[in-house]
Amino acid sequence: MNPSPPTPSSLAMVPFVSVEHMMRLINEMGIAETIAAIADRIEADFLRWERFDKVARVPSHSETGVIELMPTSDGEFYGFKYVNGHPANMARGYQTVTAFGVLARVDTGYPVMVSEMTILTALRTAAMSVVAARHLAPKDGRVMAIIGNGAQCEFQALGFHHCLGIEEVRLWDLEPAATAKAARNLRETGLTVVACTSAEAAIEGAQIITTCTADKRQATILTDNMVGAGVHLNAIGGDCPGKTEFHRDILLRSDIFVEYAPQTRIEGEIQQLPAYHPVTDLWRVIAGQRPGRTSAHQTTLFDSVGFATEDFSALCHIYDEMRRTGYHTELDLLADPDDPRDLFGMVRRGGGGQSFR
Amino acid sequence: MNPSPPTPSSLAMVPFVSVEHMMRLINEMGIAETIAAIADRIEADFLRWERFDKVARVPSHSETGVIELMPTSDGEFYGFKYVNGHPANMARGYQTVTAFGVLARVDTGYPVMVSEMTILTALRTAAMSVVAARHLAPKDGRVMAIIGNGAQCEFQALGFHHCLGIEEVRLWDLEPAATAKAARNLRETGLTVVACTSAEAAIEGAQIITTCTADKRQATILTDNMVGAGVHLNAIGGDCPGKTEFHRDILLRSDIFVEYAPQTRIEGEIQQLPAYHPVTDLWRVIAGQRPGRTSAHQTTLFDSVGFATEDFSALCHIYDEMRRTGYHTELDLLADPDDPRDLFGMVRRGGGGQSFR
Repeated sequence: MNPSPPTPSSLAMVPFVSVEHMMRLINEMGIAETIAAIADRIEADFLRWERFDKVARVPSHSETGVIELMPTSDGEFYGFKYVNGHPANMARGYQTVTAFGVLARVDTGYPVMVSEMTILTALRTAAMSVVAARHLAPKDGRVMAIIGNGAQCEFQALGFHHCLGIEEVRLWDLEPAATAKAARNLRETGLTVVACTSAEAAIEGAQIITTCTADKRQATILTDNMVGAGVHLNAIGGDCPGKTEFHRDILLRSDIFVEYAPQTRIEGEIQQLPAYHPVTDLWRVIAGQRPGRTSAHQTTLFDSVGFATEDFSALCHIYDEMRRTGYHTELDLLADPDDPRDLFGMVRRGGGGQSFR
Repeated sequence: MNPSPPTPSSLAMVPFVSVEHMMRLINEMGIAETIAAIADRIEADFLRWERFDKVARVPSHSETGVIELMPTSDGEFYGFKYVNGHPANMARGYQTVTAFGVLARVDTGYPVMVSEMTILTALRTAAMSVVAARHLAPKDGRVMAIIGNGAQCEFQALGFHHCLGIEEVRLWDLEPAATAKAARNLRETGLTVVACTSAEAAIEGAQIITTCTADKRQATILTDNMVGAGVHLNAIGGDCPGKTEFHRDILLRSDIFVEYAPQTRIEGEIQQLPAYHPVTDLWRVIAGQRPGRTSAHQTTLFDSVGFATEDFSALCHIYDEMRRTGYHTELDLLADPDDPRDLFGMVRRGGGGQSFR
C-alpha cells in the first residue's frame, strides 16, 4: 500500500512575498508613497523604542564581504532580516546587497510571512533617512547633494522630494554611468536633477548632503573643508567595520545622531572616534527627550547604519499590504502533523509509508 | 505603454525544499539512513571544528517561548536556522518546535537553498546523539531507555538502532498516549519496544538513558538514585535557560560532554552548576585530544542543546540530496536587475513603468 502523501494543512503554509509581488505591492501604492508610509511606521516604532528587544546585528565576516542577521521583537511580532554586503559582487553582475526577511508571531513562534527584502531594504533606508532629516535638517532645505549614485540613490532622492519638499538633487559618482542612470530614472519625478563632475560641485548650495557609496574601506568622500556650517549630513554608506566615508574632522564639529549606539560604534562613521565621544539617540529626539537641530549654524550628522527595528517596521507595512492586496503565494514551510507529537509518523506517511530497510 | 514585468533571471531564483520535498528526500534514502548520513557529516565537521565561525545562538525570549537564530560558517558556506520553542503550542494543535534554514555562499552572500527544518532538526538531533554515543556509550550497550515520547523519540530510537546496534527501547512518558504513539511508529523497525509505566521501570537494564521531555521549566525527570554507574546519559530536553531534566547530584558524579560550552553553560543541564565546573568539548574527544569513556563504571553525560554547526551539517546533506534528486521548487527571492546599480529602474519597470503621482 502506498497511500499518497497528505496535503499540507493551513498551519503548514506561510505567505511568501516574492520579488515580483514586492514590486507590485510597491507600485500599487507608489514608490514615494511607500517610502512615506514606511517612514511613518519607523517613526511610530521609534516612539515605542523601549518595547523592542534590541541587539546589535550578528555578522559573519569574510574576505569578500559580510552576511548579517538582524532580529528584533516588539513582544507581539518578531522579525529578522538576512542581508549580505559584498562590494565585489557588482563587477560579477550580482547585487552588492541582497536581503530577505521573516515576520513571526511571538505567542506561537510561527512565521507569518517570508519576504524578499533587497528592494524593501532600499525603501526603508530612504525612509529612515527621511525620519532623521525631519528632525535634523534645516527646515528651509530645498537642495540635496547625493554622493554615490548606486542602488540607494534614487530612493533617497524620491523620498526626500516627496516627504520633505526637496526640489533639487545634485548627483555625483566616481562612475559617470551611475550618475547618468540615476538622472535618467529621476526624470518625470518633478525633481530638478543636476549631474555634477565632482563632489565639490555636487555639494554646492546643498542644505542636505547624502553619502551612499559602496566601497568597503576607509574612504574620505568628504573632507573637512568641503562641508560648510549648517548643513545636515545623511551618512548612509559607512555601515560596517572598516568602512567609513567622512574625514574624522567633520565628525568632530558635528552633532552626531545614531539609531542604536552599540551597533553604530562598531559600524558607523563614529568608529573613527573614541567610544566615549558623545552621540544622541535619534529616538530620544523624536520622543522630545533631546534636542535635534537647535541652530542654523549647527552641522548635524545622521550616522546611519540601519537597525533591525527599521526592517521590522518595513516588514509590518508589507504584511498589512500583502493581506490587503493578496499579492503573495504560499510556502509549504512548516511541518504540521495531525498530532503535533507525531512528526515521525508524518514523515513516514510522507514517503508513502514504505517498510524500513 | 505598460510593458509586462521582466521575468526573473536565474540569479533571482533560490531553490526551496518544502516540507513535502523534505519528506520525499528523507524517505528516498530512508529515515535511519538519513540520520546515519547526517551523523557522518556532523562528525566530519566536528573534526574541522576550528574552521567554523561559532557564536551562541541569538534568542528572543517571551512569556510563551523562545525564537532563536543559529548562524555559522565554514568559510565556504554560511548557514543559519530559525527555530522556535513554545511548550504550550502542542495543546493548541501547533508544533512545540518548528524550524527552517538557509544555506548561502560566503563569496557572494547569495542564498543557495531555503529549506524546511522542523523535520530536519529532528533528524539532526538524533544524529548528534548518535555521534556522542559512539564515543561515550558503553560499547556493549543494547538497551536504551527513552524518557519523553514526543516528536523526537522515534528518531532517537531508529538512529541508535541503525547506527549503534541498540536492540531494545524502553519507553516512558507522563502521557501514555505519547508512549503508545511511539510504540506504534516503531513497529516493523526491528526494535524490541517496551512501553513502561514509570521512569524507574524504563531505565531498568538500560545502558543508555535518553531524556527528551518538552517542559520549559526546571524538572527532575531523573533523580540521583535512579541512575546506576556505567550508563551513558543522553540529555536532549534541557535546552534553554530555566529548563533542565536532571537532579544536580547526577551531574556531580558524571563526566560531562558538551557541543559548545559558552552556549551549554546558559542552556544545558550544567546551568545548574557553577561556571567553572569542568566539562569536555565533544569535538576534542572525536579528534582524539581528550578521552571519552575510559571505564565501565564511568557515568557519561552528553548535555545536548543543539549547536549551529549541526544544522549546517544537516543543511549541507540536504543541499547535496536536493541537487541529486531535483526535489525542490524555485523561489523568486532575490532582486536581480540587469544593471546591479539599477534597482530603482527594476522596481519601476516591475510596476509597468507608470508615471509618478
